[in-house]
Amino acid sequence: MPESNTEAKPKRQGRPPTIENARDRILDDAARLFARDGYDGTSLGEIAASVGVTKAAIYHYFPNKKEIYEAIIVRTLEGLRRYVSQATAETSGPEEALSRFMTAHADFFEDHYDGFLTMLVGYGGMENVVMIAEAQKLRDEHEQALRHIIADGIAQGAFRAVDVDTTGRAVLSMLNWMVRWFKPGKGRRAAAFAQDYCDLMLGGLRR
Amino acid sequence: MPESNTEAKPKRQGRPPTIENARDRILDDAARLFARDGYDGTSLGEIAASVGVTKAAIYHYFPNKKEIYEAIIVRTLEGLRRYVSQATAETSGPEEALSRFMTAHADFFEDHYDGFLTMLVGYGGMENVVMIAEAQKLRDEHEQALRHIIADGIAQGAFRAVDVDTTGRAVLSMLNWMVRWFKPGKGRRAAAFAQDYCDLMLGGLRR
Repeated sequence: MPESNTEAKPKRQGRPPTIENARDRILDDAARLFARDGYDGTSLGEIAASVGVTKAAIYHYFPNKKEIYEAIIVRTLEGLRRYVSQATAETSGPEEALSRFMTAHADFFEDHYDGFLTMLVGYGGMENVVMIAEAQKLRDEHEQALRHIIADGIAQGAFRAVDVDTTGRAVLSMLNWMVRWFKPGKGRRAAAFAQDYCDLMLGGLRR
Repeated sequence: MPESNTEAKPKRQGRPPTIENARDRILDDAARLFARDGYDGTSLGEIAASVGVTKAAIYHYFPNKKEIYEAIIVRTLEGLRRYVSQATAETSGPEEALSRFMTAHADFFEDHYDGFLTMLVGYGGMENVVMIAEAQKLRDEHEQALRHIIADGIAQGAFRAVDVDTTGRAVLSMLNWMVRWFKPGKGRRAAAFAQDYCDLMLGGLRR
């Protein structure tokens, strides 16, 4: 179902018949280039060449490089939210829920490393107000889901009466800072480190 | 004691008689500009204008913008290391030592916000091998000091037999991730959040 080229802005759903899953392929290749060379170091022509299409074909889906960049951010947050949400849907209790949240977050990070890096680097500099609103909503939902797990644990008597916001922020800080030192495919899975963090958070230091 | 202009590379200690503490003033102003406008968005001319000197005066101290950037990173790490080291020199035990390490790190971050931001953003992209070695040494010493506190706590029986590397990484992740959400002078001190994290780390979640 190709979109008409006379439209001022191409619809994001538009797909010309010649490229299968074109939008996702553009975002995948662009994420890889952005993660490797940064936003400034990546041109729209390079993205097109990587996908194997013309720049005109790219413009069918995205008006400019910045929109591709921001679409990667939103798609990554959507994927993270969906994946972690599914992983924590059924658990035996608060401890398992926290463990699943943390390991699923880390698994998604490792398996979508390029997009995740782009998301963490680019989040603060987004410009499209619609995309910003989408990204904020997804980020807030993700953080809220974590706070629910902690609050449930306190309500059920499994966790101490800790401050929920501080605890949620601590967990996400540990997971997100992985982007600064963890490299995928170089030994242990990110989820194994996340489980270590989870055990530490649960048990605490004090003897 | 002005340096001779015939030297291939100006010595870092060199000070022309007209600017008091010139090197520090250049780094202070440059850090503010880098933190606000980024590395690419800041020119050497803007740095000179901010300090109130000519570009030639800047070249007396630094051969180019990149060297200024990397000098900020090294100076920030030096300051952090010194400040936290002093704060943890005398403590009543492992719990207080951990608390002092975390709150001092957070205080230094808040009080040297521009330099800290520049350091965290720029650390991975350093190019000068001498500066890289200095920065790595300081970072490693800082991390090592934290690991010592944790290992001492275990040895003295105050802390559980946790994994020292994981715990150190968790603590630094929480502290460093503050750069992503904390803004100085907008309410609570960074050190108050750091103390919350410390309490959480000490006590753990499990009831």
